[in-house]
Amino acid sequence: MTQTILDISMSLDGFVAGPDPTLEDPLGQNGMLLHEWIFGLASWRAPHGLEGGVHDEDDALVARSLANLGASVMGRKMYSGGSGPWQDDPNPGGWWGDDPPFGSPVFVVTHHPRETVRFPNGTSFTFVTDGVESAVAQAREAANGKDVRISGGASVATQTLRAGLLDRLDLHIAPVLLGGGTRLFEGVDPTQFELAETQASQNVTHVSYVVT
Amino acid sequence: MTQTILDISMSLDGFVAGPDPTLEDPLGQNGMLLHEWIFGLASWRAPHGLEGGVHDEDDALVARSLANLGASVMGRKMYSGGSGPWQDDPNPGGWWGDDPPFGSPVFVVTHHPRETVRFPNGTSFTFVTDGVESAVAQAREAANGKDVRISGGASVATQTLRAGLLDRLDLHIAPVLLGGGTRLFEGVDPTQFELAETQASQNVTHVSYVVT
Repeated sequence: MTQTILDISMSLDGFVAGPDPTLEDPLGQNGMLLHEWIFGLASWRAPHGLEGGVHDEDDALVARSLANLGASVMGRKMYSGGSGPWQDDPNPGGWWGDDPPFGSPVFVVTHHPRETVRFPNGTSFTFVTDGVESAVAQAREAANGKDVRISGGASVATQTLRAGLLDRLDLHIAPVLLGGGTRLFEGVDPTQFELAETQASQNVTHVSYVVT
Repeated sequence: MTQTILDISMSLDGFVAGPDPTLEDPLGQNGMLLHEWIFGLASWRAPHGLEGGVHDEDDALVARSLANLGASVMGRKMYSGGSGPWQDDPNPGGWWGDDPPFGSPVFVVTHHPRETVRFPNGTSFTFVTDGVESAVAQAREAANGKDVRISGGASVATQTLRAGLLDRLDLHIAPVLLGGGTRLFEGVDPTQFELAETQASQNVTHVSYVVT
């Protein structure tokens, strides 16, 4: 049965993006530090066309998550940067290049309509202009019984949390303080989560919540 | 060699005390939820005069920490509650009763001078009126080569962090959202920590930092 899962890295001080994000650098100052734990994992490297990588607990967790990925939802800045009229971007893959690593449908929340773009590996980008709730509904339909992952960025992540659109929250607490930026839990009802699982490695602490 | 360690439980959204703390309830709304993970541990129950308890990873971690405890620093509200003239409290143990569980010297940061009180089990409470830096210095002297633990509450914890008085930060991330209260990392220099160790159980995630 399809679960809608927010799968996101957070700093120890609660931020999912650093201060002063821009279109060119939507993760904000030092925001990339949140994600360093994943770049060395074999399960992350393979779909990004990179060889090698480690096989450890973190890797097994990411592999399980990807194996059950049916569709994704992301924000416009996570799809494509730049301050120009991005909807005319000659690169239909945005940041993700000619061979986007998803292998399944991606729904991009945006104000600018654009034709769906499709790639041979099964990745498609569909542009949703009527809000995050609609994007999640379309992704659940497209997921064909597998899971929908809310990929980010910070704005889409917090919108789905506040709107109560999630079945599960898979949080990766990175050993990093950002000191500012976008807080994941700002304005979120604190009673809606029930701890499902915790797991720590030397690199990052994984916490999984069921949303009740 | 003596290390000064802040040993504290934090909510997943970054709070070490809940909203609206009072003298009678210094942990604030739902703040007690931060500490529930520890009450069932054998190593915590024994010095509190309680029998039984579990022996698991959390218990082993708390046992190691207590074995190396030389002295503690705490705030006035953690020592004694009530809105009366607490310095005339007929109970010299404050919240902690007739048999305080420390077994070593405790330095209480306060504005009100009071004679040091001593207990047969080795616990003493010394009242320090010239600030947290002085309390830490006196505790280090008294610790006799063992560690100094900053026990809390939220105000003393954040003061020691901001003043750079720590050698190590042992953080217990409880599977709880408080939605408000005192943030541990507010105004703290984010570059001063280097991850030493992480460990998770089903109940709580432990993260340890060396302060550089």
